[in-house]
Amino acid sequence: MTMTATFTGLSAAAPVSSRLESFARAHVFERPTLILDIDRVEAQYHALSAGLGRAAIHYAVKANPAPEILERLAAIGGHFDAASRREIELCLAAGAHAEDISFGNTVKKPADIAFAHAVGVEIFAADAAEELEKIAEHAPGAQVYIRLLVDASGADWPLTRKFGTSHDVALELMAQARALGLRPVGLSFHVGSQTRDPMMWAPVLDQIAQVWHAGRAAGFELDLLNIGGGFPAFYGDDIPHPTAYAARVAELVAERFGDVPRIMAEPGRGLVAEAGLIAAEVLLVSRKSHDDLHRWVMLDIGKFSGLAETMDEAIRYQFVTDRDHEAMGPCILAGPSCDSADVLYEKRPVSLPLGLKAGDRILIRACGAYTSSYASVGFNGFPPLDVVVI
Amino acid sequence: MTMTATFTGLSAAAPVSSRLESFARAHVFERPTLILDIDRVEAQYHALSAGLGRAAIHYAVKANPAPEILERLAAIGGHFDAASRREIELCLAAGAHAEDISFGNTVKKPADIAFAHAVGVEIFAADAAEELEKIAEHAPGAQVYIRLLVDASGADWPLTRKFGTSHDVALELMAQARALGLRPVGLSFHVGSQTRDPMMWAPVLDQIAQVWHAGRAAGFELDLLNIGGGFPAFYGDDIPHPTAYAARVAELVAERFGDVPRIMAEPGRGLVAEAGLIAAEVLLVSRKSHDDLHRWVMLDIGKFSGLAETMDEAIRYQFVTDRDHEAMGPCILAGPSCDSADVLYEKRPVSLPLGLKAGDRILIRACGAYTSSYASVGFNGFPPLDVVVI
Repeated sequence: MTMTATFTGLSAAAPVSSRLESFARAHVFERPTLILDIDRVEAQYHALSAGLGRAAIHYAVKANPAPEILERLAAIGGHFDAASRREIELCLAAGAHAEDISFGNTVKKPADIAFAHAVGVEIFAADAAEELEKIAEHAPGAQVYIRLLVDASGADWPLTRKFGTSHDVALELMAQARALGLRPVGLSFHVGSQTRDPMMWAPVLDQIAQVWHAGRAAGFELDLLNIGGGFPAFYGDDIPHPTAYAARVAELVAERFGDVPRIMAEPGRGLVAEAGLIAAEVLLVSRKSHDDLHRWVMLDIGKFSGLAETMDEAIRYQFVTDRDHEAMGPCILAGPSCDSADVLYEKRPVSLPLGLKAGDRILIRACGAYTSSYASVGFNGFPPLDVVVI
Repeated sequence: MTMTATFTGLSAAAPVSSRLESFARAHVFERPTLILDIDRVEAQYHALSAGLGRAAIHYAVKANPAPEILERLAAIGGHFDAASRREIELCLAAGAHAEDISFGNTVKKPADIAFAHAVGVEIFAADAAEELEKIAEHAPGAQVYIRLLVDASGADWPLTRKFGTSHDVALELMAQARALGLRPVGLSFHVGSQTRDPMMWAPVLDQIAQVWHAGRAAGFELDLLNIGGGFPAFYGDDIPHPTAYAARVAELVAERFGDVPRIMAEPGRGLVAEAGLIAAEVLLVSRKSHDDLHRWVMLDIGKFSGLAETMDEAIRYQFVTDRDHEAMGPCILAGPSCDSADVLYEKRPVSLPLGLKAGDRILIRACGAYTSSYASVGFNGFPPLDVVVI
C-alpha cells in the first residue's frame, strides 16, 4: 500500500468533525441520536467531484436516505443510484430529475421496474438473463449496464460474489439485451467497500477493461462506465484526501478506457459517513470475574439499533468520551439488547478510559453511512435511531 | 445426544404448520409477509406448560412483540419477560399485570428501571455491581435475581459471554444487593438458544446448583430459579415434543434443586417460532458463469428485512415452493438489498427446485420468532416485514 504513505496527513476528517462534536456536547439526547452535518456532505461532494472531473456522482442512496441529504445533493447537481422503488420516490421528492437516477440494484421487483420506467428512469443494472427479461418487459427500450464480478481483495470489507457476472456471460448478456430491444450501453463493477488505497483499483480496472474492449470489438456501442463505490471514509486508519483519491482513480480509468463519453461513480460511505456523529450513552461497565482482562462496556446503541456494520467487526468506529485524557484500558463493547449476538467488538477490544461509567456520554465518529436505515424497527423494544440535522 | 432419538417422530411442527401454508397459498401478498397463527401459540403454551408443571412461563417478548400474541398469552395466564420500557408498555397494553412481568435485561437504562418500578414491576435481573446500584436507586427494595455465566456448548447457537457473571462474583453481588436494600431472591441463566436435546441442560444445571446451594448456605433466602430460554423450535432437525422436552427439563431441575418455591421459564423461540410463516417471492435465479456449480436464488426478503437470524447461517429455515415435486439442486440464497453481506446461505447451500424462477412463491417455515422486530426500518428502501394474524 505504497500510495497511502504519500497521502498521510491529508485526511480532512478530524478537524471538520468537531462541529458535530460541539453540537453533541451542547445538547442532551434521551436516546441514541445520529447528528448529520449537511454542509459537510456538500463539501465532500465538491471534494470528490474536483478529483473525478466530468464523471457524474450518483449518490448511493442506501448509505443514508435522509431527505436533507438528498435535497442538498439534488440542489447542487448530484445524481442518484437507487436500490428500490422507495428510494426512487425519495429522490424525486427531494427534487431529483428522473433521468439523473439510475436503478442500480441487479435484483429488482418487476413492479418496481415498471414504476421506474413510468416516472422516467432510463438506466438499469443487470447481471443475469432473467433480469434482462424483466427489464425488457417492464421498461422496454431502456439502457442497461452489465455488472461484472471482479477479484478485489484490497478493500477493508471485500464483497461477496452476490453481485455481478463473469466476463464470458457478460458478452452474452449484451447480445441478449440487444435481442430483447434493450440498449446495452456499458459496464459496472464494485471495487469493494472502504478501499483505502486508490492503487487497489488498478488490477480491478484491468479486468473490466478487458470486457469493455471485447464488447466494443464485438460491436456493442458501449459509452457508459459505472465505476461504482468503494470510496473510503476516515475511521481511524489513514486515507487520502478525497480529491487526491478521486483524481488518482480518474487517472487510472483514463489510462485504460481513454475518453469514455459517460462515467458514473457511486459513492455512499465516501460521501456521507464523515458527516454523521452518533451521540450515545454508557449503560453499564462490568467485569465478569475478578481475573477478567477486559471490562465489558454496554452502550445504549448496538448492532440492531444502528451499528449493524460492526458485523464481523468489519467497520471499526472511533469513540470519543469526556474522559479521554484519563488512563485507558481495553474493553469489550456491546449493545443494549438482550441478544447475545449484540456484541460490537470483542476479537479486537477497544481502548476506553478506565474511569468510564454508566451515564457517561460516548460519541461515535463517522456514522453518517449505513446506520439510521439499518436500524431495526424495534428489536427488544428499542426504537430506531433518532436523526437530527444541523 | 441419546435422548433425541427417544423423541424422534414426536415433533408436532409439520402437520400444524399446514393451516398457515393453506392461508399463504390462498392469498396474494405484494411484499414479504409474516403470517401468525395465534391459536398455535396458545397450543404451544399449553404444551410447554403441561411439561413444566407449576413453573411460570414468562414469554420472552423480544421474540415477537405482536400485540395479538401478548393479548392471547395474557388472557390465558401467561407471564412476560421484558427487555425494555417499551416491551413493558406493550405487555401492560395487552392486559398483563405488572407483577407478572420481569425486567430481564441485565443492561437497563436508569429511566426504564424507574418506569418499571413506578408501574409495579417487581423483579429485575442483574449481573454487575453498577447495575445493582442503578436498581437500588430507581427501584428501591426490588427483588433481583443474579444472572450467571455458564459453559454451554450443546445449543445450535451457543451464546457469547455477554450476559451473566462468574460464580464467585455472584455471591458478592447478592451481598451487595442486600446492603443496597434490594432483595436478592434468586438466580438465572441461559442454556443457549435452540438447545434441541434436553439432556444438554444437565451440566448447566449442575453449575447453577453449586451457586444456588452456596448462596443458601451463605444465608441468602433464594426462592426463585429462572431457567431462561433455550426451548427449541422445529427447523428441520428432530426435536422432542414440547411437553416431553419441558417435562424432562423440569425433572432435571427437581433432581438438583428440590422443591424451589418459584420457578420461571422464558421461552421465546420455543413458544412462537412455529406459529409463523413468511410468504416471500423469488426475484431472480441466475448462474454467475457457465461452470457455476450452484445457482444464485434471490428472494424479496433478506438479512435486513426479517431474516437476521441467518447471520453466520445460524438458523437454517425450511423453504416450501409449488415445485417441490420437481427435480432439486443446490442454491446459494440471498436477499433483495444492494448489500453484498445480504446472503442467507452460501457455506451450506440450500436445495431448491431446478425449475424455480422469478415470480415464484416461496414459503418459509417457523418464522414466528426473531423476524418482524429484527427487520430494518427501511434499508435500501425496503419496508419492514408485514405481519398478518390469522
